[in-house]
Amino acid sequence: MTAQAAQDIKAIMQDLGTQAKAASLVLSIAPTEQKNNALLKAADLLRKNAPLIKDANAKDMAAGEQKGLSGSMLDRLMLDDARIEAMAKGLEDIAKLDDPVGDIISEWDRPNGLEIQRVRVPLGVIGIIYESRPNVTADAGALSLKSGNVAILRGGSESFYSSHAIMDCLTTALEEVGLPKTCIQMIPTTDRAAVGEMLTMSDTIDVIVPRGGKGLIERITRESKIPLFKHLDGICHIYVDEKADLEKARKVVVNGKMRRTGICGATETLLVHENVDMSPIINDLIDAGCEIRGDAAAQKVDARIQPASEEDWGTEYLDAIISVKVVSGVNEAVNHINTYGSHHTDCIITEDMNVAESFLNQVDSAICVLNASTQFADGGEFGMGAEIGISTGKMHARGPVGVEQLTSFKYKVRGDGHCRP
Amino acid sequence: MTAQAAQDIKAIMQDLGTQAKAASLVLSIAPTEQKNNALLKAADLLRKNAPLIKDANAKDMAAGEQKGLSGSMLDRLMLDDARIEAMAKGLEDIAKLDDPVGDIISEWDRPNGLEIQRVRVPLGVIGIIYESRPNVTADAGALSLKSGNVAILRGGSESFYSSHAIMDCLTTALEEVGLPKTCIQMIPTTDRAAVGEMLTMSDTIDVIVPRGGKGLIERITRESKIPLFKHLDGICHIYVDEKADLEKARKVVVNGKMRRTGICGATETLLVHENVDMSPIINDLIDAGCEIRGDAAAQKVDARIQPASEEDWGTEYLDAIISVKVVSGVNEAVNHINTYGSHHTDCIITEDMNVAESFLNQVDSAICVLNASTQFADGGEFGMGAEIGISTGKMHARGPVGVEQLTSFKYKVRGDGHCRP
Repeated sequence: MTAQAAQDIKAIMQDLGTQAKAASLVLSIAPTEQKNNALLKAADLLRKNAPLIKDANAKDMAAGEQKGLSGSMLDRLMLDDARIEAMAKGLEDIAKLDDPVGDIISEWDRPNGLEIQRVRVPLGVIGIIYESRPNVTADAGALSLKSGNVAILRGGSESFYSSHAIMDCLTTALEEVGLPKTCIQMIPTTDRAAVGEMLTMSDTIDVIVPRGGKGLIERITRESKIPLFKHLDGICHIYVDEKADLEKARKVVVNGKMRRTGICGATETLLVHENVDMSPIINDLIDAGCEIRGDAAAQKVDARIQPASEEDWGTEYLDAIISVKVVSGVNEAVNHINTYGSHHTDCIITEDMNVAESFLNQVDSAICVLNASTQFADGGEFGMGAEIGISTGKMHARGPVGVEQLTSFKYKVRGDGHCRP
Repeated sequence: MTAQAAQDIKAIMQDLGTQAKAASLVLSIAPTEQKNNALLKAADLLRKNAPLIKDANAKDMAAGEQKGLSGSMLDRLMLDDARIEAMAKGLEDIAKLDDPVGDIISEWDRPNGLEIQRVRVPLGVIGIIYESRPNVTADAGALSLKSGNVAILRGGSESFYSSHAIMDCLTTALEEVGLPKTCIQMIPTTDRAAVGEMLTMSDTIDVIVPRGGKGLIERITRESKIPLFKHLDGICHIYVDEKADLEKARKVVVNGKMRRTGICGATETLLVHENVDMSPIINDLIDAGCEIRGDAAAQKVDARIQPASEEDWGTEYLDAIISVKVVSGVNEAVNHINTYGSHHTDCIITEDMNVAESFLNQVDSAICVLNASTQFADGGEFGMGAEIGISTGKMHARGPVGVEQLTSFKYKVRGDGHCRP
């Protein structure tokens, strides 16, 4: 890139940030009805403009095929009438969610008569960096809007035309209800330098949500001067305790691992108490098509278990593979999880409620589960309506990040001429 | 510094971080009583060891005088019986606070029967970097302990001996109640490279609280790979509206500016509605010894008002100086505050509740105040008991950072063999 081109990108991004910050002051106090109307209008426009969106998508698909994108990448990129309808329905669902902005989180009076309220406010400006899934343009833009935040979107270059066609629906809807169209902005270049610039803009962007593969997240973590809501890995565990109900364990392990192997809430490691006969679980997993890698003790159970290496305990397979380790009890299980896990979602199967509490309290993960599949790690399953991602960090948001987690708060203090003694 | 010395500091810091992380797993589930007992024992030890602490402080004071520290720095460094008693009393007050850890923030059941709880947990490990105020060693260590967080303290080099004498009381108390003494650690070197290393340790430190002058905060902001709870400036405003009660305005402005001029909640800029006769307020301020710098309109009111430059609107004087600007109404006041302010604490004086709400909603600051002094910006005044600092950021903590803001949360999800369909 020439120095001139780098300057241009810096100028484009700075301008985008300034406009976003200005729009955020308007959007932060926009009435719920105005925001909901924008969402409903955008849903209508998606339906009305479906032919245009499919045309734009056809361009992306043709370029993607020429570029040699994998089948699964092309599948994520593809839009048809059903997927456009799902996006439109998603916007309507977000319109139905409670508006968190303005909620009084708590309030109290001081002995001197000062009245203090803690009131929910938007974070401000959210940057969302994602790969070539055009539907994220609608979802992330809508969740930001509902929570009163301006969104700066950076989609994958392969979905450039599709994302822009969707963006047109969003910005037209914003203008139709009288909100600045800069409330949802898309970076107008596919140059990767724009992301680098974005990550420095801590004056105008309050938080960045990176969604995508580990390489992308690692790069963003390394470079960003802005806080992130992110998870790098989902190395989720199920510990089958001595007091487990074996029938529940069999069902939950197979579901945790095999329901969908490619999601961050999929189970990657099975820990089994040394007094539990794990063969039925192993049989179920193998019957379901799962490869098993175990430690020495696990390997004794079934000849089909391959040896696990140290590296396996820290691997997110995202595939039909599971690592298995025999442990002496809940404490060893907790230690293993806190050492090798990724603080995402971890589960214990037990009927002993004391052991369960010990596990739920000691495991240092966003979501600690008793007797249920790790695949419930999802904003929708939690009843949050929709999520912009899952955070394994402890700052601000943790677990599924829904509209409420996209807010901050301020204090309103009301007095009557109070002076501090 | 030699390469060997740099290696040594890196090793020392990494070891300290590893120990802190290990201790945090113990401390995060320590019962409230055990933590409170440690605080009470530490308070006893501070009183019992007052002679030792004063001896250590005498060394620091002698070195400080030789180094030519200013009178105010020496005053902050100095410990006497009254100040040691105040520290001990501070620990006892923190012991009396409610323990936030384990609080169920919210809970709900899903239609499928899953029970979801959002439960408060400690953040983990908190790094506190502060200047030469030995009492911060006790306060910050105690607030961290109460909230279940391990503290890594880095005090100013001038208070080295005093801080270590206080640390001895804290760590002895930890051991006496059966908690790891590594729950509160002090960096054992005054080498500044240790701070640089600390700011990279995002694997073991969850948040850093920098307390001190603007230069220190700026350096830490630039270098840190770890989230910060911080405020850079406290450029606080009072807007006197057209519908202000002038008697309240006079009292509140003088208190906001002059009660203590050196704190972050002190008022730095006065905005006055063009229809308000500000002369009584100006007279009060000048009578109280305040220098006044005004825009052209303000200067017409009183010949003693000096001209304000553009720079004045963004200056935190921390002194008996105030800038004054005439505005056309609440919107111009809000715009000025959101442009030049520091998102700390800003106040409106008015009897018109519509204008008041408009101000409280639109000003993008941690603390928005109606008819009361900006100097109430303080955890103690808010009824939080004690604060580790004030945050002007919107992520996680905002405003006074008390024990509750030093916590995160986790989800506990309880099922009965639930599998995700």
